[in-house]
Amino acid sequence: MLQRLSDFIRRKPVWGWILFLSIMVVVFLIGLLAASITERRAEIATLFNNRKVEIEAFESRSDMWGVNYPREYETWKKTTDMDFKSKHLGNTRQDVLEDRPEMVVLWAGYAFAMDYEAPRGHSHAITDVRNTLRTGSPEKPEDNMQPATCWTCKSPDVPRMMHEMGIAEFYKGKWSTLGEEIVNPIGCADCHDHNSMQLNISRPGLIEAFERQGKDIKNATAQEMRSLACAQCHVEYYFKGDGKYLTFPWDKGMTVEDIEKYYDEVQHVDWVHKLSRAPMLKAQHPDFEIFNLGPHAQRGLSCADCHMPYKVDGGIKYSDHQIMSPLKNINNTCQTCHRDSEENLRRYVEDYQDKALEIRDRIEVELAKAHVFAKYAWDNGATESQMKPALELLRQAQWRWDFVVASHGATFHAPVESQRILAHSLDRSLQAHLALQNVLFALNVNPKDLKMPDISTKDKAQEYIGLDMKTLKEKKESFKNTVIPEWIKKAEQKGRLTTQKI
Amino acid sequence: MLQRLSDFIRRKPVWGWILFLSIMVVVFLIGLLAASITERRAEIATLFNNRKVEIEAFESRSDMWGVNYPREYETWKKTTDMDFKSKHLGNTRQDVLEDRPEMVVLWAGYAFAMDYEAPRGHSHAITDVRNTLRTGSPEKPEDNMQPATCWTCKSPDVPRMMHEMGIAEFYKGKWSTLGEEIVNPIGCADCHDHNSMQLNISRPGLIEAFERQGKDIKNATAQEMRSLACAQCHVEYYFKGDGKYLTFPWDKGMTVEDIEKYYDEVQHVDWVHKLSRAPMLKAQHPDFEIFNLGPHAQRGLSCADCHMPYKVDGGIKYSDHQIMSPLKNINNTCQTCHRDSEENLRRYVEDYQDKALEIRDRIEVELAKAHVFAKYAWDNGATESQMKPALELLRQAQWRWDFVVASHGATFHAPVESQRILAHSLDRSLQAHLALQNVLFALNVNPKDLKMPDISTKDKAQEYIGLDMKTLKEKKESFKNTVIPEWIKKAEQKGRLTTQKI
Repeated sequence: MLQRLSDFIRRKPVWGWILFLSIMVVVFLIGLLAASITERRAEIATLFNNRKVEIEAFESRSDMWGVNYPREYETWKKTTDMDFKSKHLGNTRQDVLEDRPEMVVLWAGYAFAMDYEAPRGHSHAITDVRNTLRTGSPEKPEDNMQPATCWTCKSPDVPRMMHEMGIAEFYKGKWSTLGEEIVNPIGCADCHDHNSMQLNISRPGLIEAFERQGKDIKNATAQEMRSLACAQCHVEYYFKGDGKYLTFPWDKGMTVEDIEKYYDEVQHVDWVHKLSRAPMLKAQHPDFEIFNLGPHAQRGLSCADCHMPYKVDGGIKYSDHQIMSPLKNINNTCQTCHRDSEENLRRYVEDYQDKALEIRDRIEVELAKAHVFAKYAWDNGATESQMKPALELLRQAQWRWDFVVASHGATFHAPVESQRILAHSLDRSLQAHLALQNVLFALNVNPKDLKMPDISTKDKAQEYIGLDMKTLKEKKESFKNTVIPEWIKKAEQKGRLTTQKI
Repeated sequence: MLQRLSDFIRRKPVWGWILFLSIMVVVFLIGLLAASITERRAEIATLFNNRKVEIEAFESRSDMWGVNYPREYETWKKTTDMDFKSKHLGNTRQDVLEDRPEMVVLWAGYAFAMDYEAPRGHSHAITDVRNTLRTGSPEKPEDNMQPATCWTCKSPDVPRMMHEMGIAEFYKGKWSTLGEEIVNPIGCADCHDHNSMQLNISRPGLIEAFERQGKDIKNATAQEMRSLACAQCHVEYYFKGDGKYLTFPWDKGMTVEDIEKYYDEVQHVDWVHKLSRAPMLKAQHPDFEIFNLGPHAQRGLSCADCHMPYKVDGGIKYSDHQIMSPLKNINNTCQTCHRDSEENLRRYVEDYQDKALEIRDRIEVELAKAHVFAKYAWDNGATESQMKPALELLRQAQWRWDFVVASHGATFHAPVESQRILAHSLDRSLQAHLALQNVLFALNVNPKDLKMPDISTKDKAQEYIGLDMKTLKEKKESFKNTVIPEWIKKAEQKGRLTTQKI
């Protein structure tokens, strides 16, 4: 063939030149492409070397990190635009207590009865913890309702302050005394090493829980870290002892029963119920614990796999830091593995949530009634020993209910485990009723004589449990108008809030 | 290259011959292979043409079909070697009532309280329905406890007899009058067309249920038929009216609530409970209904996909007719889709079963107690109107419990739906208790004065509910020794049981 070609060129030299030049052009273009590929590779490889600013240890200002890592930072900023309202989770409004006034009764005597909102994105963490009625209106340190421990999960300023003050000293303080120091919402430094950008555990609670189990969290794999970074906060924990030392109750295991056993053994009581006088537990948000009992964890997935899927912008692949429900991003999350339509995938999840909600609805009605019933028994002269079995059941029932309800996404993360726990909660709620009926009969009181209070709205329920919401709200408004601006001003003066312009 | 080769051969002619002969040998072997492939193809293609015997319409002797279809027949025969005992399902013994004596109390007044065994393979269907105490010992037609409808799902002789007698006439008869006709266990003709071998619906119940919903079952796809063939029997049904006409209660839908609504509306009562006098429902085995609400059905799988996986013997692919738990054959079933170890896959299923079993255990304890409690209320002079709410709750609670417990594999087929149903059952069981406590108090009886009977074993529970098991068993033995051999002898004389030797 080459022989024939050379014959042809010998006969028609002009065509020979045209062919030669065409080949030259093609080779040149291939060269350009190769250069572009090399350049892109280099761009990715030198991302760390191209840092524009040096990030120092305990740098809590995420905007500083954003100068070097604009993609992660920009997506993190989008956490302002998020909420987790869902009719399938039973709250269509931001104010959950408006949707479910029984919860006011369940938490009577505890701060959650004043104010409980649907969760929002990470960047709201500081605003929300300042503004909630649960942190009160401490104009002076002695007005504090809450310990400094309440800040623990809210800000990358926390590891900085723990480093400065010492961990135990940090927890021992009062919430308001750190208002001018803890000002940046959950951000980069909470999960990343300032130097290597590796995932990093900044909170002592998780490290200590591992240590008590004889494990070193430094041995965790990269994939495990993609869940453990979240497990610094998205877990069950409690404020231990007078020092309010944030502690994970995992020493006996991580199921709802294991943790209850732990709390029972250390005789932990979060609060005494105002109506029933039951020694209550409040679940935080045992997301990691429940996730680990579900099908996605069983198959080796991490939190980040679905909540921080990879994105590609201009050839650079990175994790989406707008941490949110995977249902808002099905094509980048579920559909990475599941070959099924978006509509179907959403329906499967919502079906699970709806089925759990059915049982949750029943529990809340029965538990609220049981607390009222218990008050009625006390009012009619019941004794401590008569009431004890019922109060134990109320503690157990509500702990189980709360474990599922407080856990973000529980009914999807581990649908069967969630249903199991809810069934046990409903079981104990009704057993409490049975016990209370017996107490009333022993007192010669007909349970049917009890007139159930009207708790059909949040306002009515709060009034019934004796909350003076008007005063609480007025005080909070004053606190928001006077104390918070002062905190922000001082933080700005100290350079804690500088938005770095370069 | 050819030029060089021809030069070489010209120089060394012996090598040329060796090369030529080698090529001839290879070509010959390829020819053999091609012939073998063609032959195998032909073998498969002419499987139907090579039939050794002609199968006639309503041929109920599976061994006749086995002459033509030895692979399917041989695997079907293996259904003799199977049971479905499982500690994760809560029955480790063949006799379920031995394992769970509360069930005796739940079924007091109904035949299931005498005898309830773990399911076995299809080929035991006739033996088991003859031998169970539930069919009694009818030496004369008037001794019958059961209608002929009880045969409906047991044998391919049923469509034959329905064809001979007419459907309504078949159902109207007494069970024992067909003992010499219905002799072959569930087999080929139950699901296959005798001529085309296509899947075929032989039972009118399913066809009629489709018709009432305005659907024609003939329009079902091949994949749908791979479930519908099973849905002829593995469903919820009841014996309607005095004619005991087998009817699927699907007119309002197929969920546990839809079917209950249907039964309530037609005021169907399977039996009146002997202790509580509640108007009870007995669930059959709503396998198809529950399967349809689970993840595998949602993703388009049929029963046969997991219960009758494909096998290959000597190049011929066929369905395994040893219908059984896919857990006994994980590598051919689950692992077709799920890339996970056998150990893990088994654990996921058993976890689901264990979590459901926890709630089931609670229900059985509470429901049994509630029936006893109700009897106590009657014994103390309760009135119909006082008892009505509690009895309604008992009916509802036990219906839900039974729907899950009677459904083979429910807690795997639809684990979340099963948990939801069980939670509602437990809820209503305890609500029944609350109602009954109130009745007792209204009668001035202290519920605590009730001494719970000892129902810790099957024998004790059966004695408590007033069953004379000794007589029942003796009568059954006599029936098995006299009547059944007579049935078999007559069937043999009529040629119903011929084992065809060719």
